[in-house]
Amino acid sequence: MAEGNSKGGCYVGVDLGATKIRVGVFHPNLRLLGAAKLTTKPQRGVEGVLERVTRCVRYAVDEADLSFQEVCALGIGAPGTVDADSGTVRFAPNLDWHDVPLKRQLEEQLKTPVFVENDCSAAMLGILAAELNPKPRHALGLFVGTGIGGGVIIDGELHRGYTNTAGEVGHMVLDLNGPKCACGRKGCLEALASRTAMFKRIRSAVKDGRKTVLHEWLGEDLDSMRCGDLKKAIKRGDKLVQSVVDEAAQFIGLAVSNLVNILNPQVVVLGGGVMESLADIMMGTIVKTARERAMPGALRGVDVVATSLGGHCTTTGGAALSRRMVRPA
Amino acid sequence: MAEGNSKGGCYVGVDLGATKIRVGVFHPNLRLLGAAKLTTKPQRGVEGVLERVTRCVRYAVDEADLSFQEVCALGIGAPGTVDADSGTVRFAPNLDWHDVPLKRQLEEQLKTPVFVENDCSAAMLGILAAELNPKPRHALGLFVGTGIGGGVIIDGELHRGYTNTAGEVGHMVLDLNGPKCACGRKGCLEALASRTAMFKRIRSAVKDGRKTVLHEWLGEDLDSMRCGDLKKAIKRGDKLVQSVVDEAAQFIGLAVSNLVNILNPQVVVLGGGVMESLADIMMGTIVKTARERAMPGALRGVDVVATSLGGHCTTTGGAALSRRMVRPA
Repeated sequence: MAEGNSKGGCYVGVDLGATKIRVGVFHPNLRLLGAAKLTTKPQRGVEGVLERVTRCVRYAVDEADLSFQEVCALGIGAPGTVDADSGTVRFAPNLDWHDVPLKRQLEEQLKTPVFVENDCSAAMLGILAAELNPKPRHALGLFVGTGIGGGVIIDGELHRGYTNTAGEVGHMVLDLNGPKCACGRKGCLEALASRTAMFKRIRSAVKDGRKTVLHEWLGEDLDSMRCGDLKKAIKRGDKLVQSVVDEAAQFIGLAVSNLVNILNPQVVVLGGGVMESLADIMMGTIVKTARERAMPGALRGVDVVATSLGGHCTTTGGAALSRRMVRPA
Repeated sequence: MAEGNSKGGCYVGVDLGATKIRVGVFHPNLRLLGAAKLTTKPQRGVEGVLERVTRCVRYAVDEADLSFQEVCALGIGAPGTVDADSGTVRFAPNLDWHDVPLKRQLEEQLKTPVFVENDCSAAMLGILAAELNPKPRHALGLFVGTGIGGGVIIDGELHRGYTNTAGEVGHMVLDLNGPKCACGRKGCLEALASRTAMFKRIRSAVKDGRKTVLHEWLGEDLDSMRCGDLKKAIKRGDKLVQSVVDEAAQFIGLAVSNLVNILNPQVVVLGGGVMESLADIMMGTIVKTARERAMPGALRGVDVVATSLGGHCTTTGGAALSRRMVRPA
């Protein structure tokens, strides 16, 4: 850890989710030096959440055997619509936040420069900065977790759009008569292939009398189901779980083909909690479906890969963002 | 026409379609001075088509009361995948063209600089150059005709993508179990809302015994059906045609909402032959559906409009492209 200790300080990346706060402390070369996690508890309001963010940041810096004075800057990825210029979270439905001046409030508490970005955009920046070599001109990220979001890189830069809402790939309607989505529409990618969607489908199949080995270790109600359980079940030969996960992978592949037809990026990267647990099971089907369904030529020479950053896409992106704004000491 | 005659010469734009060649001759301010049309006859091969293009160009220049010496440059929008840098049509399935060096061949024949672009990309450039004021940073075009294509403007520039195939919005799958598309997939926007799709649906409904006033002026087989006929039928209160056109408009609105969620442009412009005939009937439903289905905030302040350039989007774009490359004399 000496590398990150003395020379050049470090950068902190924060992934602020509705359920979980994740912090990574990074060397200026974006190597992870230490990390920490804490539940978010959004019901405690903005002040309560910010107290937990700053606490988690201090845990992570300590975990990296650094002192807070060595932090050059901090970047935070927040859910919802973010105004990156002012560092304000405009609207984050999962946190119930409206117009929260996150940059200003965190800078006051932490006495270090803070930069704010949408969480999926930050994740895409992290992948671009730490993982993709050579740097592609155009790239696309899909992040599959509780919901599904995206990040779009055009000409080497994040594409934020006119009102900073670009990248909402999770609400692409793929099946007009598909299941209802949290957004009120039907058949959005998120309602077909997110963790929430897969769990819902498994529970509903069980209600209809289908059998699954998940009951053995989760009990009758499957209340504490996690993606890791799905992986275990598939390894045990569970047909129901296999078919649900396969179908989700097909929908993700279909979404990739739609997006590739529209944007023709050089690389498509998949990340998020679902990929973290299930990439080795899902990627084959995702790539196969995307290749079968994209227009001729649109996927020629295009890589479709899972990120190697695991759960640290957004934290890496936060660090990369803050490194771009503040040079090492 | 004196304005275009003496000072500064003129620019020629060509819309090379599989069915029809359309040429516009433009003042350097992109005002249309003269135009001509000719059938394409792709079965005559590349040489045959190019002879028709040059003939149509000469007709249009004459129509504008200009001489060919006054042409500064020519821009051509071609269907399929185009390498704009070399001016080569890589692959145009509707023309059965593979690797045609369109720029070089036309320059040899016309002795004027020629620039080549994908037809929908050219159309979007034309709309941006001649119609949109102030110029948006991010804009999106959907062109609905025999097929459906798109054009994407990011940061004021055309987004062509990694292998020049970006903008294929017509092959976005919207309904997994929808009708079969020419591309081999099911439920693409093009299979749901193009002219071809609407005509197919009307013919199929008639086979099932539905009544339509179209028979009165087109006979039993509806062979010569055109979009203008649909408009007339709707004005006569034809319920079948109204419902088919409404459904297509809903699918286009849904596609707009998907695209706006992904790209968050400042303006969405609809063009193409179907819009030329049916914009006043379809736009209300398109805008309403897009607004109902886009994510909150993604369509805030965003205009969704039909182009005012009618059938001259691509020719205007060809002229704008060539004007960008060659200054007026």
